[in-house]
Amino acid sequence: MTDFTATRAAFSLPEGITYLDGNSLGPLPKAANERVARTITAEWGEMLIKGWNTAGWMAQPEVLGDRVSRLIGAAAGSVTLGDTLSIKVFQALAAALDMAGSRKVVLSDTGNFPSDLYMAEGLLRLMPDKRLLTVAPDAIEDALTEDIAVLMLTQVDYRTGRRHDMARITALAQAKGIVVIWDLAHSAGAFPVELEACRAEFACGCTYKYLNAGPGGPAFIYVRPDLADTVQPALAGWLGHSDPFAFDPGYRPGAGIARMRIGTPPVLQMAALESALDIWDAVDLHDVRRRSVALSERFIAGVEATCPELVLVSPREAALRGSQVSFRFTDGYALMQALISRGVIGDFRAPDLVRFGIAPLYNDETCIDHAVATLADIVATRAWDMPAFRVRAAVT
Amino acid sequence: MTDFTATRAAFSLPEGITYLDGNSLGPLPKAANERVARTITAEWGEMLIKGWNTAGWMAQPEVLGDRVSRLIGAAAGSVTLGDTLSIKVFQALAAALDMAGSRKVVLSDTGNFPSDLYMAEGLLRLMPDKRLLTVAPDAIEDALTEDIAVLMLTQVDYRTGRRHDMARITALAQAKGIVVIWDLAHSAGAFPVELEACRAEFACGCTYKYLNAGPGGPAFIYVRPDLADTVQPALAGWLGHSDPFAFDPGYRPGAGIARMRIGTPPVLQMAALESALDIWDAVDLHDVRRRSVALSERFIAGVEATCPELVLVSPREAALRGSQVSFRFTDGYALMQALISRGVIGDFRAPDLVRFGIAPLYNDETCIDHAVATLADIVATRAWDMPAFRVRAAVT
Repeated sequence: MTDFTATRAAFSLPEGITYLDGNSLGPLPKAANERVARTITAEWGEMLIKGWNTAGWMAQPEVLGDRVSRLIGAAAGSVTLGDTLSIKVFQALAAALDMAGSRKVVLSDTGNFPSDLYMAEGLLRLMPDKRLLTVAPDAIEDALTEDIAVLMLTQVDYRTGRRHDMARITALAQAKGIVVIWDLAHSAGAFPVELEACRAEFACGCTYKYLNAGPGGPAFIYVRPDLADTVQPALAGWLGHSDPFAFDPGYRPGAGIARMRIGTPPVLQMAALESALDIWDAVDLHDVRRRSVALSERFIAGVEATCPELVLVSPREAALRGSQVSFRFTDGYALMQALISRGVIGDFRAPDLVRFGIAPLYNDETCIDHAVATLADIVATRAWDMPAFRVRAAVT
Repeated sequence: MTDFTATRAAFSLPEGITYLDGNSLGPLPKAANERVARTITAEWGEMLIKGWNTAGWMAQPEVLGDRVSRLIGAAAGSVTLGDTLSIKVFQALAAALDMAGSRKVVLSDTGNFPSDLYMAEGLLRLMPDKRLLTVAPDAIEDALTEDIAVLMLTQVDYRTGRRHDMARITALAQAKGIVVIWDLAHSAGAFPVELEACRAEFACGCTYKYLNAGPGGPAFIYVRPDLADTVQPALAGWLGHSDPFAFDPGYRPGAGIARMRIGTPPVLQMAALESALDIWDAVDLHDVRRRSVALSERFIAGVEATCPELVLVSPREAALRGSQVSFRFTDGYALMQALISRGVIGDFRAPDLVRFGIAPLYNDETCIDHAVATLADIVATRAWDMPAFRVRAAVT
């Protein structure tokens, strides 16, 4: 049984803040500062260049990748870390297209995170015989035809929290000979992901949302183990080479997942991630999911009982949701600013969605009830209806 | 006049260590730990998601990019930071090929860092009508013909320290209609780079060598300002979009250099870089260069006077060198291990080179004389000739 009192105590949350935005940026593990300071002072400062071996920096992408793999239902040795999620999407898509042979269409949906679609667009500009087809999320199954080369989806919609049935869609796609990539940005750390079981060829995700690795935390990429020795890296960086320090003039991809490494790993970000994984190591994601559903339902019920102006846009059925709840409200931006001004932090997505991430590692019933009460008061008193709450910040 | 006593005092170097490997990983700025701790505790911990605006995380790639631009002779607004150098090479090459039209050949040299060649190989696999041609460094000028689309070179050879004449080669290439990319990995912070003056279209480099940003520090990319609004990003990430938080389904590149951003910036690595740039802001690179030449010549003279078995492979003429000195020695690996065991840290590059980086921000005559004396003693006594010094570490 996961000890959620212990996990909550492992995070540093500011006094008076109710944080429901861990689906955007997870909060600070209390141990992160000391962990990063050790890397800076005792490793970089004392070991200097020797840190790559002695402190294990060079091995971090796979050592920490193994710890992430457990959280997404993947085998040890099938995940590596580094770069950003956009880069990992590009890597996965390029490798998938290489596997897919002569088929020409990359299929995605309008619920995908825009950067995934942009990266596909950028890649496909280099491959003018290929094209991107984007359909509505509920039209994906019908679009799985034999001219589709690659299916590239984000499992949980960043706006609504709507969750695709990964196993079902993967099976349907693979039955048509389609290579499958899942973006797990809003899945990893949000609920149990059965990646290995679903047999998708590729997956990727980020560590700074539910995994709490901090701003700019490294991304992850998964390649199904039976393919890892044969996939062709398009981003053929030296640290994916089979012998980087031989400095061969020609690229020879490394064994297994290591070939998906590119350049020098972000050692300080890795240290922060490690402090977050120390918390995750004691967590059972099935417990997280049970708490997430209970807290989400409590939140939905509370909001619907007190704020009839807010319309639920997340699926009502828990099985169809990730770990966030979104509502539609015409003046959603101002509403969210009003909430934030009272210490309840969620976020806003244009044109009219207010989003709340539910993260049982540090959210509990008290958070939920306080958020509901604050929201209800703001809506009832129209406290959001002030010019100051309409001023847009650069990052919203 | 740069105050080198002050710069030296700004770094934390372990007692008893003579560090001549700043061309691989620069040492720790004393202020880095506190600077990163502030980002972790006061920004991530207290501001949470608001850090993107309030702490300026979102603006860091260009704010710090402007501070790097001064060090490479580039205009403010022409440099952005993020990712790894391998990724930035890929970005620059893809954009350069897009500009180069129907020409088919990417020209580089065998002195280029292998990862640059690997990234080119990976990209050109996606563009089967293009190919990579690699010639010896001194054959580059003759190879600049009108079938070359892009010239992609690293200015300073990572093994020998041999330095290309960037202005001359750029002018020769551009006279043939060739688009030019310079990798400044071993140039930035090593000597004054006159990037803007040479009119090269693209440049990139890393911050963890002479710039001292720490392991995994972000890379930089430069696009010549008159081109920055028209280059086509192949790695079309959301943070290069003209309005990332509009979450448009289609990619529209941002204005200027911002379009070379890809994903979420590595905020902790940026904080460490900032502490290094605080030192650089008070430094004149012409002073650095004068000291670098003096220290390098002192080192060469000392080694040649005391270690006749070591053969200088760096150019003897200072104008042809970057800021490192390399010697050939058959048992170079064991020799370097013996040196390291006595606290003199340089590095080894297969098959037989020992490399010494000269970084006047923290290296002085005492360092050089101590390194020479230690090397002379090891060579004279054959102290390197021990089994323990032949055991290869993973990263050498």
